[in-house]
Amino acid sequence: MLLPRIDTAALVARRARLSKALEGAPALIAAGAPSPRNYRANPWPYRAASHFLYLAGAPIPGAFLLLEGDAATLFVETPDDDDELWHGPSASLADLAAAVGCAVRDASDLPRVLAGRRVATLPAIDAPTRERQSDLLGRPVRYGALAEDDAALADAMIALRLVHDEAAIRGLREAADGTAAAHLAGMRATRVGLREHAIRGAMESALLTRGMGTSYQSIVTVHGEVLHNHGYGHELREGDLLLADVGAETEGGWAGDVTRTWPVSGRFSETQRSMYELVLTANRAAIEKVAPGVRYRDVHLASCHVIARGLVDLGVLRGDPEELVADGVHALFFPHGVGHLIGLDVHDMEDLGDRAGYAPGRTRSSQFGLSYLRLDRDLAPGMAVTIEPGFYVVPAILRDPKLKAIARDRIDHATLERFADVRGIRVEDDVLVTATGAEVLTSAIPKTVRDVEHAVGGG
Amino acid sequence: MLLPRIDTAALVARRARLSKALEGAPALIAAGAPSPRNYRANPWPYRAASHFLYLAGAPIPGAFLLLEGDAATLFVETPDDDDELWHGPSASLADLAAAVGCAVRDASDLPRVLAGRRVATLPAIDAPTRERQSDLLGRPVRYGALAEDDAALADAMIALRLVHDEAAIRGLREAADGTAAAHLAGMRATRVGLREHAIRGAMESALLTRGMGTSYQSIVTVHGEVLHNHGYGHELREGDLLLADVGAETEGGWAGDVTRTWPVSGRFSETQRSMYELVLTANRAAIEKVAPGVRYRDVHLASCHVIARGLVDLGVLRGDPEELVADGVHALFFPHGVGHLIGLDVHDMEDLGDRAGYAPGRTRSSQFGLSYLRLDRDLAPGMAVTIEPGFYVVPAILRDPKLKAIARDRIDHATLERFADVRGIRVEDDVLVTATGAEVLTSAIPKTVRDVEHAVGGG
Repeated sequence: MLLPRIDTAALVARRARLSKALEGAPALIAAGAPSPRNYRANPWPYRAASHFLYLAGAPIPGAFLLLEGDAATLFVETPDDDDELWHGPSASLADLAAAVGCAVRDASDLPRVLAGRRVATLPAIDAPTRERQSDLLGRPVRYGALAEDDAALADAMIALRLVHDEAAIRGLREAADGTAAAHLAGMRATRVGLREHAIRGAMESALLTRGMGTSYQSIVTVHGEVLHNHGYGHELREGDLLLADVGAETEGGWAGDVTRTWPVSGRFSETQRSMYELVLTANRAAIEKVAPGVRYRDVHLASCHVIARGLVDLGVLRGDPEELVADGVHALFFPHGVGHLIGLDVHDMEDLGDRAGYAPGRTRSSQFGLSYLRLDRDLAPGMAVTIEPGFYVVPAILRDPKLKAIARDRIDHATLERFADVRGIRVEDDVLVTATGAEVLTSAIPKTVRDVEHAVGGG
Repeated sequence: MLLPRIDTAALVARRARLSKALEGAPALIAAGAPSPRNYRANPWPYRAASHFLYLAGAPIPGAFLLLEGDAATLFVETPDDDDELWHGPSASLADLAAAVGCAVRDASDLPRVLAGRRVATLPAIDAPTRERQSDLLGRPVRYGALAEDDAALADAMIALRLVHDEAAIRGLREAADGTAAAHLAGMRATRVGLREHAIRGAMESALLTRGMGTSYQSIVTVHGEVLHNHGYGHELREGDLLLADVGAETEGGWAGDVTRTWPVSGRFSETQRSMYELVLTANRAAIEKVAPGVRYRDVHLASCHVIARGLVDLGVLRGDPEELVADGVHALFFPHGVGHLIGLDVHDMEDLGDRAGYAPGRTRSSQFGLSYLRLDRDLAPGMAVTIEPGFYVVPAILRDPKLKAIARDRIDHATLERFADVRGIRVEDDVLVTATGAEVLTSAIPKTVRDVEHAVGGG
């Protein structure tokens, strides 16, 4: 491989901070192996582990980074004899060492270097690399089950990656720019009679054209009420809302994650507009709430209160908004959390489970809705989160006996019927916590009714 | 999931033929699990195993198909309670049974159904599914190492999938149509000053817009001499040739695989044109050779002879073309095989290794060039193959002492210098073996100098 742009100074500083947090204890960070699609020689695009990208800056299949005190060593696989024929000239080991700012050795040295030592690691996402980790360290390394030896490393990585440094913030801005281009392309490409596929193609093309990929499987659907809808076969009809949840992944691995919902015709109906403005208000209220020291669950609850109050005003819910939120009735229409960490992973560090998203001592609620909240930490400057409230009419929820019991008589079904042309709306931005409040990284993407209608071409 | 278009009758017929070949011995075919990117909840698009798609017609994560005599049973995982919220309504088991044309049961029944029985299987590409197969069958199931019990199943599947039935041929035609749209879009999007990214974006957008994906990682590069070049960062300059190796994957999983090489400016230089026409002649000579009963290695050699003769005519090689091919000198400029099987996999059934590509008793040559030939079977009507000769000036080859020893004094380096603006050319089509010869499935894609220049907009 040839080297991408690498900010050597940022990598050196990150490794120094991690080593300090570990008090010099050794740590082995795996890049991971390519994932095959249908046979071994046909892999998905290579995606190195985010922990590795964060500390080594380049996606190097099969590599390991060993940190011990002030020393960092990158162990890389020697290319096969015919590697240059198939994959072209590689960066020399000297160039690699200079770019990553550390020593480089052959991966075949690793067993000797690690033999008999206690070294912490983080489980790779792919099974072959976890097997390699287990062999190298002489103990089982399992995804989703951190060994005691590894917990301190996980906590140190979390502390480091939670607060984005300048290089990271540049990466997030770059991802936000690509994501903005994709959403604008999607809005502009929208026409009655096309299929969802076509809009997805326009959006992802805008990313590919910039040398970016997607940081997760795009959702581009006129059935936004299906939260993780990965089909793209529906025709766009007059009167439909199109929900697009599409985010860039930069060459360096940084993620964008944005949802916009727009009318296929270019004009919201009255009912769509009033519900869209409610979700937009919830988005803004949550962003308004973002500031250092604020507990993220309270950001979530701020958006829930707006949704509950708005649904009462629109006549869809009955009762006191405070009580509706306390009982979780709003969650029948806004069942997911208001957002999550974002960084090198779109759900940043979710490979470490709730250890990343939940502060020590905090655990997930068992209440429907709140149980899906992925983040419950106190915010600090440099953290980045998504803010993504929504409103959905989900038949599976509305007919579920347990959930109906939560609602009791507080849903006005006749009024809800009037919103039949609103199936799912979500408005999502990526937000950086600043010293005094919040900066919306994705503010270039049309969001008001007027701006959205104008971008789609109906305004 | 909702069901894609399924040709039930074709599936039933395929399963009947397989069971007959197995003389009723039971076989367990795994669909496989989604592959995670960077954490478990962020998977690559789900791609079911081709053997499963071939027999069950639909990509159902985690499913197994059990064949025993005339009976076929599909074992599927019961959705979680909240599955409908996140993924929408699923096809009912009754609908699924009707579409796939077999019984459907819950996957949790499998251990009981299989307990203590000898059942053949084919190793899944993903490690978690192979672990499941090992558990279910009480024996290790390893990728790339078929157990004796499984070899007969592999051979029966190979015999079945080698000869495409009508439904398969429809799938291949659909893939060829998508692939044609991608290449036309790529040619039309080409402009001096853009980056390779932009052309890749235009090509893949044409696929996404049709509800298709790519069947392998696209190669779109002005450095075609790097055979598996997956970077897209170079600027397109006046005088560059752009090599694009991009193939569609249809919703049903069928693959296209086409390479075209075109001048960025819209006009081939004299040297580019003469070398392009040579590669085109080799492509045509190989296609001409395709017919039932012909050994595929002879198709490969037919293209090698054209390349060798042409390079002698152009003054790049010295000597007798027959002797140059016998010694493998042509392979210094055309180092790979002329093609491979194509079907549900772009290298069809490569998960089974050379067992699929090589007829019993035939093995890979050790000669440079020929050693990369992926297919050496006698052709039969219904087989589909790629035909993809090329010419490349690969520095790593030309300076390799072992390979220089093959060339001796038979390369005229001064003449080769004159072709400095030709770094890599490949012309690849997908070809169906018919009763009397061959049908080029990808004939809609510009291929002559004139058609290519016209499509790029310089002609």
